[in-house]
Amino acid sequence: MFRNFKMVSKVVFGRGCASQLGDILNEQRRSNKSVMIFLVDDVFESGTLKDRLPVKTDDLIVWVNVDDEPKTSYVDQLTTQVKKHMVGKQDHHPSGVIGIGGGSAMDLAKAVSLMLTNAGSSADYQGWDLIKKPAVYHAAVPTLSGTGAEVSRTTVLTGPQKKLGINSDHTVFDQIVLDPEMIADAPNPQRFYTGMDCYIHCVESLTGTYLNSFSQAYGEKALDLCREVFLAGPGDADDRLMMASYCGGMSIAYSQVGICHALSYGLGFVLGLHHGIGNCVVFDTLEDYYPEGVREFRQMMARIGIQLPRNLTADVTDAQMEKMIDVSLVLEPLWENALGKDWKTIMTRDKIRELYLNM
Amino acid sequence: MFRNFKMVSKVVFGRGCASQLGDILNEQRRSNKSVMIFLVDDVFESGTLKDRLPVKTDDLIVWVNVDDEPKTSYVDQLTTQVKKHMVGKQDHHPSGVIGIGGGSAMDLAKAVSLMLTNAGSSADYQGWDLIKKPAVYHAAVPTLSGTGAEVSRTTVLTGPQKKLGINSDHTVFDQIVLDPEMIADAPNPQRFYTGMDCYIHCVESLTGTYLNSFSQAYGEKALDLCREVFLAGPGDADDRLMMASYCGGMSIAYSQVGICHALSYGLGFVLGLHHGIGNCVVFDTLEDYYPEGVREFRQMMARIGIQLPRNLTADVTDAQMEKMIDVSLVLEPLWENALGKDWKTIMTRDKIRELYLNM
Repeated sequence: MFRNFKMVSKVVFGRGCASQLGDILNEQRRSNKSVMIFLVDDVFESGTLKDRLPVKTDDLIVWVNVDDEPKTSYVDQLTTQVKKHMVGKQDHHPSGVIGIGGGSAMDLAKAVSLMLTNAGSSADYQGWDLIKKPAVYHAAVPTLSGTGAEVSRTTVLTGPQKKLGINSDHTVFDQIVLDPEMIADAPNPQRFYTGMDCYIHCVESLTGTYLNSFSQAYGEKALDLCREVFLAGPGDADDRLMMASYCGGMSIAYSQVGICHALSYGLGFVLGLHHGIGNCVVFDTLEDYYPEGVREFRQMMARIGIQLPRNLTADVTDAQMEKMIDVSLVLEPLWENALGKDWKTIMTRDKIRELYLNM
Repeated sequence: MFRNFKMVSKVVFGRGCASQLGDILNEQRRSNKSVMIFLVDDVFESGTLKDRLPVKTDDLIVWVNVDDEPKTSYVDQLTTQVKKHMVGKQDHHPSGVIGIGGGSAMDLAKAVSLMLTNAGSSADYQGWDLIKKPAVYHAAVPTLSGTGAEVSRTTVLTGPQKKLGINSDHTVFDQIVLDPEMIADAPNPQRFYTGMDCYIHCVESLTGTYLNSFSQAYGEKALDLCREVFLAGPGDADDRLMMASYCGGMSIAYSQVGICHALSYGLGFVLGLHHGIGNCVVFDTLEDYYPEGVREFRQMMARIGIQLPRNLTADVTDAQMEKMIDVSLVLEPLWENALGKDWKTIMTRDKIRELYLNM
């Protein structure tokens, strides 16, 4: 059985295309009383982006904070806020939820659009194909590239018990607006860490056991583009990085990430480390598993001038360490993709502990 | 303004995945009385494919003949046949139209699915964005790779006056089933000609003036895959050719084909030459416009052992020649993509006549 991969319905790509967002959303507004919800990374609250949002009278802008990665409790709180905003409005649901920001802001938009139509807490839906009802129309305007969140069928959330995505066809965006000018101002090291999320997941995907030619074509192109961006630095690096992220996300269709992502989830859950930097910290210790990838990754780090934090696990308690191991071991498809069906005989708790102690 | 590109809704890719077609269609059947229409290239009428089609009692298999490329009159005839089949059935429309074959069979499925819900003749809709109503659900199972018809927003039809596609978001398939085993038996030279459709349209797209990074990423990957398939011949050539076709089709999102396709349309209209072979005949004469591409194309021809027909235009009448020129000149976006805004000063009727006389 091969996955019947749900694609993003519509894509617009081009320098300046974010200015078309208003026209695109107008097609989704059911009437002039309809409501759009903009979830925007609060890093933009003080800038000029606000003036360019195609906001109408009854719309709601929520400046979302992503200092922490998205938590299920935050998703539930935002969903409640949107529901309150809809009280007394003509429509029961908003006509759309638009995420503007990096992977976290996009994931919040996905999760809120799902939770407006599915009862309970978002924590109830962490897993695979647990969502029963279609989401509200949801769109993304990425301002950082690398996570592939713009095309993926997951929204990664930290819940009370686990860090795990809501993986569902209904999670996939209805619309993505890929404007390379929107990522032009992303500062390093954040730009680098997010770009490396793409690079690393392609290394994991291309060396994994789940791979087929669909994912291989996308993964290879994403890697090529990452190399161009981070080893050569062409004039249109923003355009290429945006396409690298898109291709990297698509490559996951018939593949999976691997050891780095599995360990990074555990690290992120316990230490609160963001996904991008977490992946970099973990990947730098995985020379035994991804020798060529780690070597090239270090060349990119050197060229961009990135210093990774070290000794992150020196002070973790035994309980924290066990929790990190637990969280990473939940991600069975990732381990199986990396190490095959017999992964449990290779990747023991002791081995994982040893790897974590290197970070 | 950048095009808001409509993507195929769902893709399944993998060796043997065509066996999942029944399950996929069951999700679309509105009841056990629902009807699926299978438009299948009649080359398969005598083989074993018929026994593997997931056909239910009220479904209809139509063996379509693609000796000629799809005509609007044929589309209208097939649409009438489907409408007659639906008389007395529970549903007004079928639950789906499934095209199984190469570009022509896929284009027929697209066109019939559109004409079931849009009144009049398919000739009325040749052009850009003339379709007003969504099509019936339509899916494709390619048995030849290269045209990109599986992901494109057009269905190329020969009408009473012109050869021109029905270009519309509604034309795009709801589902494509990409099974490399389905193209394994495609014979040369047909396989080569169809593969070269992909190669040539990527050369045209990558050298065109409409290009952006989205189309460039896809076009470059498609070219790489074509080179692997036709210059190296790897064991998984079918998988790679299928992905080349998909990527080539996607590369058209923010690009256009060029001189070769424009001339090939005229040649096909007057001489009845199929699109794939027509492109090859034309491209072989375009060294002045695509020098590197034509050189590599000839290497591929030599390696596969292809002999192109020659002197095709030696006996055409003046009236036929003028018609060929007329048909090719209708395709303004193709000429503009290849030669820029001032293309009319470069590509005169005399120049086109001279090119045609070389074929």
